[in-house]
Amino acid sequence: MTILDTIRGPRDLKGLSGAELDELAGEIREFLVHAVARTGGHLGPNLGVVELSIALHRVFESPVDRLVWDTGHQSYVHKLLTGRQDFSKLRGKGGLSGYPSREESEHDIVENSHASTALGWADGLAKARQVLGERGHVVAVIGDGALTGGMAWEALNNIAAAKNRPLIIVVNDNERSYAPTIGGLANHLATLRTTDGYERVLAWGKDILQRTPLVGQTLYESLHGAKKGFKDAFAPQGMFEDLGLKYVGPIDGHDIGAVESALRRAKRFHGPVIVHCLTEKGRGYEPALADEADRFHTVGVMDPLTCEPLAPSNGPSWTSVFGDEIVRIGAEREDVVAITAAMLGPVGLTKFAAAHPDRVWDVGIAEQHAAVSAAGLATGGLHPVVAVYATFLNRAFDQLLMDVALHRCGVTFVLDRAGVTGVDGASHNGMWDMSILQVVPGLRIAAPRDADQLRAQLREAVAVDDAPTLLRFPKESVGPAIPAVGRVGGMDVLLQESDAEGEAGADVLLVAVGVMAPVCLQAAELLRERGLRCTVVDPRWVKPVDPELPGLAARHRLVAVVEDNSRASGVGAAVALALGDAEVDVPVRRFGIPEQFLAHAKRGEVLADLGLTPVEIAGRVSATLTADRGAHQQGPGKEYTV
Amino acid sequence: MTILDTIRGPRDLKGLSGAELDELAGEIREFLVHAVARTGGHLGPNLGVVELSIALHRVFESPVDRLVWDTGHQSYVHKLLTGRQDFSKLRGKGGLSGYPSREESEHDIVENSHASTALGWADGLAKARQVLGERGHVVAVIGDGALTGGMAWEALNNIAAAKNRPLIIVVNDNERSYAPTIGGLANHLATLRTTDGYERVLAWGKDILQRTPLVGQTLYESLHGAKKGFKDAFAPQGMFEDLGLKYVGPIDGHDIGAVESALRRAKRFHGPVIVHCLTEKGRGYEPALADEADRFHTVGVMDPLTCEPLAPSNGPSWTSVFGDEIVRIGAEREDVVAITAAMLGPVGLTKFAAAHPDRVWDVGIAEQHAAVSAAGLATGGLHPVVAVYATFLNRAFDQLLMDVALHRCGVTFVLDRAGVTGVDGASHNGMWDMSILQVVPGLRIAAPRDADQLRAQLREAVAVDDAPTLLRFPKESVGPAIPAVGRVGGMDVLLQESDAEGEAGADVLLVAVGVMAPVCLQAAELLRERGLRCTVVDPRWVKPVDPELPGLAARHRLVAVVEDNSRASGVGAAVALALGDAEVDVPVRRFGIPEQFLAHAKRGEVLADLGLTPVEIAGRVSATLTADRGAHQQGPGKEYTV
Repeated sequence: MTILDTIRGPRDLKGLSGAELDELAGEIREFLVHAVARTGGHLGPNLGVVELSIALHRVFESPVDRLVWDTGHQSYVHKLLTGRQDFSKLRGKGGLSGYPSREESEHDIVENSHASTALGWADGLAKARQVLGERGHVVAVIGDGALTGGMAWEALNNIAAAKNRPLIIVVNDNERSYAPTIGGLANHLATLRTTDGYERVLAWGKDILQRTPLVGQTLYESLHGAKKGFKDAFAPQGMFEDLGLKYVGPIDGHDIGAVESALRRAKRFHGPVIVHCLTEKGRGYEPALADEADRFHTVGVMDPLTCEPLAPSNGPSWTSVFGDEIVRIGAEREDVVAITAAMLGPVGLTKFAAAHPDRVWDVGIAEQHAAVSAAGLATGGLHPVVAVYATFLNRAFDQLLMDVALHRCGVTFVLDRAGVTGVDGASHNGMWDMSILQVVPGLRIAAPRDADQLRAQLREAVAVDDAPTLLRFPKESVGPAIPAVGRVGGMDVLLQESDAEGEAGADVLLVAVGVMAPVCLQAAELLRERGLRCTVVDPRWVKPVDPELPGLAARHRLVAVVEDNSRASGVGAAVALALGDAEVDVPVRRFGIPEQFLAHAKRGEVLADLGLTPVEIAGRVSATLTADRGAHQQGPGKEYTV
Repeated sequence: MTILDTIRGPRDLKGLSGAELDELAGEIREFLVHAVARTGGHLGPNLGVVELSIALHRVFESPVDRLVWDTGHQSYVHKLLTGRQDFSKLRGKGGLSGYPSREESEHDIVENSHASTALGWADGLAKARQVLGERGHVVAVIGDGALTGGMAWEALNNIAAAKNRPLIIVVNDNERSYAPTIGGLANHLATLRTTDGYERVLAWGKDILQRTPLVGQTLYESLHGAKKGFKDAFAPQGMFEDLGLKYVGPIDGHDIGAVESALRRAKRFHGPVIVHCLTEKGRGYEPALADEADRFHTVGVMDPLTCEPLAPSNGPSWTSVFGDEIVRIGAEREDVVAITAAMLGPVGLTKFAAAHPDRVWDVGIAEQHAAVSAAGLATGGLHPVVAVYATFLNRAFDQLLMDVALHRCGVTFVLDRAGVTGVDGASHNGMWDMSILQVVPGLRIAAPRDADQLRAQLREAVAVDDAPTLLRFPKESVGPAIPAVGRVGGMDVLLQESDAEGEAGADVLLVAVGVMAPVCLQAAELLRERGLRCTVVDPRWVKPVDPELPGLAARHRLVAVVEDNSRASGVGAAVALALGDAEVDVPVRRFGIPEQFLAHAKRGEVLADLGLTPVEIAGRVSATLTADRGAHQQGPGKEYTV
């Protein structure tokens, strides 16, 4: 029996000796490596917070004290310490979430995986405590990378304002977000860390500043904190203790005793306080530490010893197709530049950055800045390509609308991980973009169905210089090419089953949005078996609705639009409304995601649960048309029932 | 002839003497007071930047040098100096915009009136200059209030990263955003400004730090800057000159020579540099200076001597109805708290703040933090009411979705200035909320039609503790009460013209969204004159669509939904789609704002141009039904054509 086996909740940690705690930390690392290798998941970040998590749960009394984990992918250790040690179905259907989950545990508060939110949540929780006169601490754990997000700054400005409202900010400083920050600020800090000049400043601070009243001690601590990559985030507050933001650190985040001691100091201080912990992403697992790209930020199912992937590769990813094509475009056009929000590799810009280092910018976890600076770049004569995960674009909605679109800037947004991503749960699905962006005047949205289309549409997008364009594609491997058999307007016809007279027209028009093309083609096959003739069309550009679509629709008895996006306001909605405006009253069936957040499970499982499968689609379509035929026989008054 | 008359462009400023420049400044103030009193507009902010604007145009060569005005409402002086002196139709149809406008002038760059964007724009423009190897300076002018927004911080982090990329940030520090910042940080700074202790630190800085290499000079300047309310925003960068963010200041922003001298110093520095100018909002106009609330931030048409409004008052505003009711609710429920993003007065929270000072927070120009901290407050056991302008909620879309809604937090958003606001132009219209929020699971949206409904629905909203709710109402005065004559589901029937048999049902169902109720009632009157019977219904809660609406719609020949919101994805779209899902195929006409940005003009003029008038609506509805009757006579195959 291991020590970990005996930990049923945070209380079980209290009686352990220092040696036992170190042993427990080792057991947890062992557990994490093997458990995460079996299911896939976030490994590096969790290996980095083993001691920190133990110390937090020894010093604080969760759930009376509130622990808020920023981004949440580093909460595995927290789960292990709060009664959740069955990782066998981690991130799988019915298994543990890869993020905190209120449903799982009273120890969890924030489920959202978007970065930089913890300080705002903590500010609200602390204010509520104050208003209600409740006891108990509020502790936010945030990475140094997440401090580059504007939300973190907004929260700090508010937190520092109330010097009598206790709030503990633990900065988990591993000098990384997903990957090492490549911005100039980080470069400068790195230089400072290694120069004699900086050491001299520290010595000078120690000698002189500590003897100066009012600003001395805090300023020294701020200077000292900066040494380890703290990005000076808190220096303005730290400089003036009167402002109420106390600084404790830097602390070796892998020394449980040291972290506990710092946290206890912070607890005693009745105001906002920062505890600056230095940790190592991937700690204790050699293959992770050797991975310079991202320290095994996330891994798939793999052999924990060899780290060889155990799941078969299904060929190139959508990301890599984009990544290769943007390099080619970049070589042809010197005005094409790229922006990433702290995810150069995951969004496929590594090769572009290598080829054109002066034409790519990592702006930090700062989607707002990605979009607004792109407006500036476009106005300055360049064509920026902003590559982000679909779910994170929500952060930049206002900037896309009011800065990029209002000013008719030629900016191309490339959304990776669009649609149902699945295992990362509710806040990672990219199921909102094609809905909320419908209102943006002038914006064009493309959903490529295969690699060829992605390449072609990317080129079409960057050719537009007086309006924003957007491409969206999913997480999975790109499938085989799906050839067009015809063209109507700007739309590709993927299947055309004309009637006997050879006139275009059939029973059902299936509108396949992007990656749903194979699903629609299979549904058409099933419908054919039931005697229903289908046309399958890929609109390519889903916004605006192709002006030829209503005319095409009018030659069918039913239109079915299939998308892995919210049904509310999505492409199906846009098609239905466009048909209405064009006075084409062929009924429209919309297949998409209903108005709900989606629990974690594999993408295929989620789609199946939502009925986004060929069998379900064909079944519902044929049921509609069959019911309709019945109605038709009963009376001529109504042509279709949908 | 005045000196101002001779200024046709920035070049005409160059030959003027110091005395002439001071005279020009006086003329501009005189002009502003009289011109803005005639049309209404932003007065206080422009009176504060007269000398700053003159100095900027003397030192820089716009448009080769790029001047970016944050928020843009302080660009009147800039307009006067760049060939735009006809203010007779300021903010009116066909007249000058109240913000920079690319259409008006090559000297204008950013039209967006949302705060905190200028640094991001400037970062993009500066990067483009660098990539293209172009000469010329990029200058951003940003207020101290706008520095509380997360975008400003994200941009600073990026700007400071490139020490060799020139970019000049002019901080226009008037210690205010709309009104004085009431947050604790500002309070602390105010204390520091007036204490001997702080003066001692400055003296200490001057004596000691200036002799210390590496950090001395910049640190001193940072400390010195803080004295005048600089909010320490740049201290982290300023502390380490190696980071590349140089600080110049503080400068008396009303001393043209001093500002010019500082700007010339900044020009010579080949990297990012801050010029910190202290200005006085409302400068030179006694009534403005005496206005502690907002220094005449915006004024209506008024007598410039007495400041008496010259436009008749139309009774209480929607804002005041909300403001009074939330005070009553606050007295009854101790758990109701309020949040404003730097606009306590404009959103109607002044009385609530007076009654419950410990239950209201001004978070700065930080809508993201308003929403995310509200999630924390709700999780902590309170019911937050987040009161913002409708257009600014776009900034918090991700937080409303992923923090508030995903966690089922009972938070009430109150959107003032919803719909067409008109004179403030494209970026101030609140025409997006009912569209983009359609996707948010669990969110309920109310659009009250009169004061009684606003009060009632506000109470219904704050009673919901497991999901977000949202109310939206416009800028104008609230009109007379519009009584309901019946109720269907949760919907108020405002007019019911049953058929002869007394059965509910008529030709047209007019769905009136909020403030469009009177328009619909008048349209119904016109339709009655044409022999068409109407039902007018106010859905009250427009999201989700009332489950009784499809059944009600089925008893009519045509449904018309009228809203002052984007047609794309708006309430009309939601109604049409709900009818489709319910297999009710009564055609739906959607009256709303097409997919475009709206030029500035009075609200009524904008609505008229969009056809959102009783005459237009009645005309289009009756034309549809008349055409339909014609079709009906020709053949039975098609019941309605829309």
